[in-house]
Amino acid sequence: MNFDLCRGERCMHSNQQFDDKHLYRRLAGKIIKQINSGVLRTGERIPAVRKMSVQERVSISTVMQAYLTLESRGYVEARPQSGYYVRFRRESFLPEPKTSKPSGAVKKVALNSLLAKGQAAMLDHSVIPFGAALPALELLPTAKLNRISAALSRRAVRAVSSYNLPPGNLELRRQLAKRSLDWGCALAPEDFVLTMGATEAMSLCLRAVTNPGETIAVESPTYFGILQLAESLRLKVVEIPMNPRSGMCFDSLKILLRQHKIAACVGILNYNNPLGSLMPDENKCRLVRMLAEKEIPLVENDVYGDLHFGEVRPHTAKSFDQSGLVLLCSSFSKTLAPGYRVGWTAPGKFKAEVEKLQLVSTLSTPALPQMTIAEFLQSGLYDRHLRQLRTAFAAQIERTAHAVAEYFPPNTKITRPQGGFVLWIELPKNVDSTKLQATALAENISINPGALFSASGKYRNFIRVSCGHPWSDKFDEAANTLGRLIVHDVK
Amino acid sequence: MNFDLCRGERCMHSNQQFDDKHLYRRLAGKIIKQINSGVLRTGERIPAVRKMSVQERVSISTVMQAYLTLESRGYVEARPQSGYYVRFRRESFLPEPKTSKPSGAVKKVALNSLLAKGQAAMLDHSVIPFGAALPALELLPTAKLNRISAALSRRAVRAVSSYNLPPGNLELRRQLAKRSLDWGCALAPEDFVLTMGATEAMSLCLRAVTNPGETIAVESPTYFGILQLAESLRLKVVEIPMNPRSGMCFDSLKILLRQHKIAACVGILNYNNPLGSLMPDENKCRLVRMLAEKEIPLVENDVYGDLHFGEVRPHTAKSFDQSGLVLLCSSFSKTLAPGYRVGWTAPGKFKAEVEKLQLVSTLSTPALPQMTIAEFLQSGLYDRHLRQLRTAFAAQIERTAHAVAEYFPPNTKITRPQGGFVLWIELPKNVDSTKLQATALAENISINPGALFSASGKYRNFIRVSCGHPWSDKFDEAANTLGRLIVHDVK
Repeated sequence: MNFDLCRGERCMHSNQQFDDKHLYRRLAGKIIKQINSGVLRTGERIPAVRKMSVQERVSISTVMQAYLTLESRGYVEARPQSGYYVRFRRESFLPEPKTSKPSGAVKKVALNSLLAKGQAAMLDHSVIPFGAALPALELLPTAKLNRISAALSRRAVRAVSSYNLPPGNLELRRQLAKRSLDWGCALAPEDFVLTMGATEAMSLCLRAVTNPGETIAVESPTYFGILQLAESLRLKVVEIPMNPRSGMCFDSLKILLRQHKIAACVGILNYNNPLGSLMPDENKCRLVRMLAEKEIPLVENDVYGDLHFGEVRPHTAKSFDQSGLVLLCSSFSKTLAPGYRVGWTAPGKFKAEVEKLQLVSTLSTPALPQMTIAEFLQSGLYDRHLRQLRTAFAAQIERTAHAVAEYFPPNTKITRPQGGFVLWIELPKNVDSTKLQATALAENISINPGALFSASGKYRNFIRVSCGHPWSDKFDEAANTLGRLIVHDVK
Repeated sequence: MNFDLCRGERCMHSNQQFDDKHLYRRLAGKIIKQINSGVLRTGERIPAVRKMSVQERVSISTVMQAYLTLESRGYVEARPQSGYYVRFRRESFLPEPKTSKPSGAVKKVALNSLLAKGQAAMLDHSVIPFGAALPALELLPTAKLNRISAALSRRAVRAVSSYNLPPGNLELRRQLAKRSLDWGCALAPEDFVLTMGATEAMSLCLRAVTNPGETIAVESPTYFGILQLAESLRLKVVEIPMNPRSGMCFDSLKILLRQHKIAACVGILNYNNPLGSLMPDENKCRLVRMLAEKEIPLVENDVYGDLHFGEVRPHTAKSFDQSGLVLLCSSFSKTLAPGYRVGWTAPGKFKAEVEKLQLVSTLSTPALPQMTIAEFLQSGLYDRHLRQLRTAFAAQIERTAHAVAEYFPPNTKITRPQGGFVLWIELPKNVDSTKLQATALAENISINPGALFSASGKYRNFIRVSCGHPWSDKFDEAANTLGRLIVHDVK
């Protein structure tokens, strides 16, 4: 920018005549470029109006006009008394996948052979982890937690060394009860059973409400852990069509419930893995009522609930539960410490059964990790940490989506997650993502093939890409390589 | 003792004429008194011959004669190049229970209602814990372990915070592989899957080898956790008669195997809980062969194997396993740290299935406790600790047996455990130990009623008494109170 021009502009800034239109457009364009290149990231504040005016040597009203333009085009959002923030943009370069259409038939699950590869890759640090739905450790308060853990090891010798029988550490259950207000619930410490991550919570809850041979209704696509669990418990599944924005399709679910005897419904209602879809709270209320009419338990997985990109945390279906039929399951594995294995369930009227199953299956959970997380929550640091984490994940998702748009074939489709940190990507029809997984792994890149997310062999041309790690050149390179492999497949 | 006499005796000690017979008998009687009163405890060395001679002012040959008398009467045993040690005496004040005679019918298990009480009592520190098969924390290297844990929390931040997927920490599996020589095995680190205590190991192994509705063969009596597990997995059980010294009765087992289709056999062969019986190694070999002929898996629980009172650690059935059908399960909960929840299984040819079930049920075990125990084992302190612990448990068992003899009705029967730390006590026929549990709990004493140890409602007049805690006046008082309650019941 020419200095003289600027000076001239500043002098004239009360009447705003000189080439103002040109200036605010130029400024807006500059900021858009910074957003697109990742210099300004989703959730970050753009400079205050006055600061920008000084920095760019333009009038305050020019900056205001630029910011209003950016807001109207969806690049930034104003937050009262705070400023303008880079928005996660709903419109992206690539279209969204359509509502899924699973077969509606009852299926046995058989995923084992597909899973072994992904597991090995998860432990290999030389692999670019697009495959693991795990947050990067550098985004977590790992050092702080381990300091608390070390101090407790020395201070609370008896508690750490003794059995910590179900329902688990009372202080952590107290902290969860406090936080449950955020989820739209008002749970008491007595409502919780602490578990080995959400995995044990889901496993115990499904065992409590089903018998081998029965059928459960699951989202389609859904997290493969749920399908594997069904397989291990000899449950059959019927798959519910999913809208990539709002989750379960009610009309289809209604029909399924009429057609089949369903023992339980399982859902990740807040930011489904892999879709990132968010079931609106009013739909949750309808779902809970609809299932309660038929006395069908709902096993609700809420591990992504705290990772909302919008201002407000979505409620849980549990918050609409009148009859004790909702078994809410979650953990701190996506937000604090995967390795600590601290999860929980609020299993409603199945609590005694869940506790009994836990006693029989693992007897007791280790006390130290639960005590550590309880102390971290007590310190009041969790909410600040969550704010930073959400901003980071939103930015990482956006950056990954950009790379996909840049490197993948043009007829690729991609979701608009409203929380969490995974993307669900539809590749051209003739791509077999199970084969792609193998070729990608040979290039030290892990991905999850779509076939894992359904019992019916659907989604063969989809992949789930995890955005748990801060973007860097090596991720960009990996995305480029992936794109190359896909384009090669398409040909 | 008269000083002049002693001096006289010392002067004469080469010809040993003066009243020697009288003196060695008096000395032997004095030592027996110390053993009976608990001043000298099972496994402790009695003073060296020379020291005793000086201390008691008697000749060396008098001491030798006294010691030989004690040895011939079974109070002490000589250990080459080491001295004389207080023996665990096979002959006790009360007779032993007879070989058990369970019905031989296939039964469903329904123990739930009986268990809730015991669980609550386990967590209550004001209760005298005759009910919990747990070592007292003061007998364990709790402080040392927690120091290691604290150091690792600070030093190994990444490893502690990340997933520790099946089969679990490699260094601990290496240490276990080394120790497996002690168990008569030569296992490799790859043979192990680390678990949440032996409970998860048993749960995963039973799930891997059975289907709901099938029948398993269990010892009778056996640890109620195994029966509960069968109940939760919808397995039926058939009970194997047990000799209180040598465990499973083969002839009966043979008949059972002919009569029923058995999906798996489950046994605590080294120091069965509650009997303390030890299956001789040659019987283990026969058992493994017999089951292998019919391709029946054996789930072997060895949590008490390291707690042998004899010189030599008994082998495991796993050591005779040629066909991969033995699933060995154990933990450090009885010897190092119940609260750490570190167990393992060497599940033979079912390893892949066990790993898969673990991945689905709990995903990952916490890394920190496994790393801590691995470091403790590496330090070489475990064997010394085990020696002390065995001595303590043997003494505690003997002390408890004495109290039972003193306070319980004379027609009480009691086992002679050869390892571990529980006693199985047969009360007069008309005592209902389930009622006794309630009246004892009202007096702040926990016990386990016999009915818990069978699916067929047997053992109603038995109790299991745990001897995990060093004896003290309050334990003595509790034993006295228990005796009073039982005598009151008999009348």
